Amino acid sequence: MAVSNRNLTMLTDFYELTMSGGYFEKGLQDKTAYFDMFFRRIPDNGGYAIMAGVEQLIQYLSELKFTDEDIDFLRSKKIFSEEFLEYLRTFEFACDVWAVPEGMPIFPNEPIVTVRGPVIQAQFIETMVLLSINHQSLIATKANRIVRAAKGRAVMEFGSRRAQGYDGAMLGARAAYIGGCSGTACTSVDRDFGVPALGTMAHSWVQMFDNEYEAFKAYAEIYPQSCTLLVDTFNVLKSGIPNAIKVFDEVLKPQGYRPAGIRIDSGDITYLSKKARKMLDEAGYPDCKICVSNSLDENTIESMLAQGACVDSFGVGERLITSSSEPVFGGVYKLVALEDNGVIIPKIKISENVAKITTPCFKELWRLFDRDTGKAIADVLTMNDEVINDNRPYEIFDPQFTWKRKTVENFRAQRIRVQLFDKGRQVYTSPDISYIKEYCAQQLDTLWDEVKRFENPHTYYVDLSQKLWLTKDSLLKKRS
Amino acid sequence: MAVSNRNLTMLTDFYELTMSGGYFEKGLQDKTAYFDMFFRRIPDNGGYAIMAGVEQLIQYLSELKFTDEDIDFLRSKKIFSEEFLEYLRTFEFACDVWAVPEGMPIFPNEPIVTVRGPVIQAQFIETMVLLSINHQSLIATKANRIVRAAKGRAVMEFGSRRAQGYDGAMLGARAAYIGGCSGTACTSVDRDFGVPALGTMAHSWVQMFDNEYEAFKAYAEIYPQSCTLLVDTFNVLKSGIPNAIKVFDEVLKPQGYRPAGIRIDSGDITYLSKKARKMLDEAGYPDCKICVSNSLDENTIESMLAQGACVDSFGVGERLITSSSEPVFGGVYKLVALEDNGVIIPKIKISENVAKITTPCFKELWRLFDRDTGKAIADVLTMNDEVINDNRPYEIFDPQFTWKRKTVENFRAQRIRVQLFDKGRQVYTSPDISYIKEYCAQQLDTLWDEVKRFENPHTYYVDLSQKLWLTKDSLLKKRS
Repeated sequence: MAVSNRNLTMLTDFYELTMSGGYFEKGLQDKTAYFDMFFRRIPDNGGYAIMAGVEQLIQYLSELKFTDEDIDFLRSKKIFSEEFLEYLRTFEFACDVWAVPEGMPIFPNEPIVTVRGPVIQAQFIETMVLLSINHQSLIATKANRIVRAAKGRAVMEFGSRRAQGYDGAMLGARAAYIGGCSGTACTSVDRDFGVPALGTMAHSWVQMFDNEYEAFKAYAEIYPQSCTLLVDTFNVLKSGIPNAIKVFDEVLKPQGYRPAGIRIDSGDITYLSKKARKMLDEAGYPDCKICVSNSLDENTIESMLAQGACVDSFGVGERLITSSSEPVFGGVYKLVALEDNGVIIPKIKISENVAKITTPCFKELWRLFDRDTGKAIADVLTMNDEVINDNRPYEIFDPQFTWKRKTVENFRAQRIRVQLFDKGRQVYTSPDISYIKEYCAQQLDTLWDEVKRFENPHTYYVDLSQKLWLTKDSLLKKRS
Repeated sequence: MAVSNRNLTMLTDFYELTMSGGYFEKGLQDKTAYFDMFFRRIPDNGGYAIMAGVEQLIQYLSELKFTDEDIDFLRSKKIFSEEFLEYLRTFEFACDVWAVPEGMPIFPNEPIVTVRGPVIQAQFIETMVLLSINHQSLIATKANRIVRAAKGRAVMEFGSRRAQGYDGAMLGARAAYIGGCSGTACTSVDRDFGVPALGTMAHSWVQMFDNEYEAFKAYAEIYPQSCTLLVDTFNVLKSGIPNAIKVFDEVLKPQGYRPAGIRIDSGDITYLSKKARKMLDEAGYPDCKICVSNSLDENTIESMLAQGACVDSFGVGERLITSSSEPVFGGVYKLVALEDNGVIIPKIKISENVAKITTPCFKELWRLFDRDTGKAIADVLTMNDEVINDNRPYEIFDPQFTWKRKTVENFRAQRIRVQLFDKGRQVYTSPDISYIKEYCAQQLDTLWDEVKRFENPHTYYVDLSQKLWLTKDSLLKKRS
C-alpha cells in the first residue's frame, strides 16, 4: 500500500523535533501525554464528514523508525545532543492509539483520534496523524456529497491528472471510493487498493484515425465486450452518436455484443444527453449507458438532473480529487491531559476565540442510536472511565447553551472508536476496502435526512457528559 | 527524491492502457505522435504562472518500466492480448521530450511540455506529465503570489498537516521554495530537497510546563542560539511578551545570545504585532524578529502590511500548500501532430468552445526580450523549424484579433524550452534547487510590473508566427 516501504518518519514538522529534543533534555521523555485530533467545521457547510485515512496512519505508525540517514541529517543541524539522537535511533513506538474507524460519519469537536504515550512520541506523530486523516477525510466527504447528488447513478473518480501530487491522486481515489464512488480512472489505485479502474478512450484516439467512424470501428473491434465510445470530438449529435450507432450495428451486433456506453465530455451536457438518449433508444440501444464528464461537482450534477439530463454515470475529476470548493480539512491535534505520578491532569488551551478553546481530559466518544428507528440521536463525549447506561433515560445538553436539554430514552449507546495500538503494538487490522465502503453506506443510513441535506443541514448534537462539562468549566473559571 | 524507487508506472489513467492496447492491435504502435501540454488560464486571475515539477517528471520517465506484478495485474483484467503485454514488459522509453525549465514564468496556450515518440509511449505518460507539472506549478505560482505580498519579508511554508497527501506536503514545499518561500516546516523536505526546515514550538510545549515562564525558560536553556518563543498560548501582551522578555534577559543575555524571535499564531495579529514590536524595542530587543501565522495568504498579508503590521516573517500553511483559493492547475495534454511516412501531419481538436480549440503542429516556443531593458516583450509559438531572426524587426499579432499588430525591434529571441530526453535518453540534468529558486527570481525580474500586479494584470502576449497561424486557420476552415 502507498505508505509501506517509504521512509516517512521525517515527514514531520521540524518543531516536533525541537520540542522532542527539549523534552529529552529536561528529562520529560517518559512523561505520559494525551493528545486528541479533532476538527472544527465541516467542509462545504455540510452536515457531517466521513472518517478516512486510518489504514495509512496504521501503516505509518507500525513502521515508524529513524534510519541512520535520518539521524545523520539531524546531527548536521547541530542543535541536538548525541544522547537525544541515540534516543531517536533506538526509538520504539509505545503509544496507545484510538480512532474512529474509516467510513464512519464524524462531527466537529469530537476526538476522532486519541494518542496516549511518552510525550516525545505522542507529540512527534502529530504531523502524520493530521496529514493522513485530514486528506482522506476531506476527499471521502466531498465524494459522498457528489454521490448523493447523483441519486443512485454511478460516480467515477477521474481526477489523477489534476490531483495535488501522486498520493493526492491515489489515496484521494481510495477515499473517494470509501465515500461512495463506484470506481476510478487510475490504474494503480486498482492494483494497490482494489478500487475498480475503468477507462476507454481520449480524444487523441479519435484523432489518430482518418475519421471518427474508423476510430470507433477500430475500438469496437478490439474491445467488443466493453465498448464505450467518446462521441464529442467533432459534433455529438451530427457525428458522434450516428457514428457510434453505425459501429454498434456493424461491429457489435453481428457478434452478439451490446454496447457498454457513450461518453460526452463537453458542450451542453444536459441537452446533449437527452438528445443522445432518444437517438440511442430509437436505434435499439436503450441499454447503452450515457456517461458524462467535464468539470462536474455536486452542484452541477444536481442541476443537470433537475433539468432532466439522461445520464447513467458521472466521471468527476478535479473538483472531487482536490475538493476544490473547500480544499482543506482543518483537523488539529491538541494536548488534552498529562499524567503526573499516575494521576491524569486535564489540560486546556484557552483562546480569545471561543471556538478554539479545547475540551480537556482523556475522553471516550459515544454515539446514541434510537432503538426503534436505528437512527443516530447524538454523540456524547465522556470522561474515559464513564459509562453511559442505555437501560435508563439519559439527559443530554448543549455544551455552549446548557439550558438546551433533552432526555433520550429507548436508545443504544455505542463507543464508536476502536483501539489501533496498545503500547505500540498494533491491535487492529484495517478491513478490506469494500467492507469499509459498505460500512460507510450503512453508517450514513443511521443519519436523518435533515443532517444529510446540502442546504442548511441540521447541526448534529455533539454533547459533553455532565462530568466532563464540569471539569472543563472549572478549568475555564480557574484560567479567567 | 520523492519519486525514485517508487513504482509509479501504473499511476496512469486506465484509458491510456486501453488506447495503447488498441494502437498495438491495430499495428499503430510505431506511429510517431506529437503531444503538447499546455494550460488555459492562470490561477487566481494572475498575470503569469511558474513552471515546476520537471525534476520529478524526469525521474519518472527515466525509471519508467512495467514490473512483472504490473503485467500480472493487467493480465487479470482479461482484455489485453499476451502480445501487447509482452510489448509492455519489454517497453523501453524512446520519446523526445522538451519542457520549459523549472522556475520560468509560463503563460496560457504555450506548449510547456512537448513529447514526440511512438504513440503508445507518448500517450501512456499523459497522466504523470500532467500530474507532475500541474501540481508543482500550482503551488509555485501560489507561493510566489504570497511572497510578492510579503514585500521582501520571509515567507515560510507551514502546511504539511493540511496538505493533500504526503507528496502534496513534500513536493508542494519544494515548489513553494522555487516560487520564493524561504523555507519550510517539514523536516523531510530539508533532508530530501535541501529546502531549509525551521521550527520551534507548539502550544503543547507551553502546556507541558507549570506555567508559560517555565516553558520559555526551559526552551531558552536548551536552544539559546535559536530561541523563538510562541507567545500566544494565554495572552500575548499581558503574559507572552513579558515572559519572553524576562527569559531573554535571564537566560540569553548572560550567555551573550540574542533572541531569534517571537511567534504569534492567533488574535488580531496586526494590532498585536505593533504592540509587541514596541515592547521588544523598549526592552532592548529591536533585533528580535516577529513571526506570525494563522490562515494567511496574499490577501491577508497585503492587508496586514497596509495597516502597518510589524512583521518580519510569515508562516503560511493550508492556503499555500493547497492553493486553497484555486486548488487546480488545469494543464491538458493534446495530440498536435502525427507522422506519416516521415511527413508531419498537423492535428487539431475542434470545439464549440473557442478557448478549447488546440494549436496544431510540432512547435517551438520563443520569448522575445527587449535588449535595452531586458524585459520580456512577448512569447511566440512558431513551427518547430522556423527561426526568429532577432537582427531585424519582427511583427507579432494577436492570434484571435489579428488586426492587433506590433512590430518589435531591438530584441533578443530565445527558445525557452530545453530538451529533457532524446529518443528516451536523458539529456538534461535538473539543476540544484537553490539554482532553480534563484533562476525563478531572475526570470520574474524580466516581467513588467503590470504583468505581476494582483488586480487586473496585463495579459502577456502569447502569439503565433504567421506560418503557424496560417496552418491553424486552414485546418479550422477545412473542418467547419
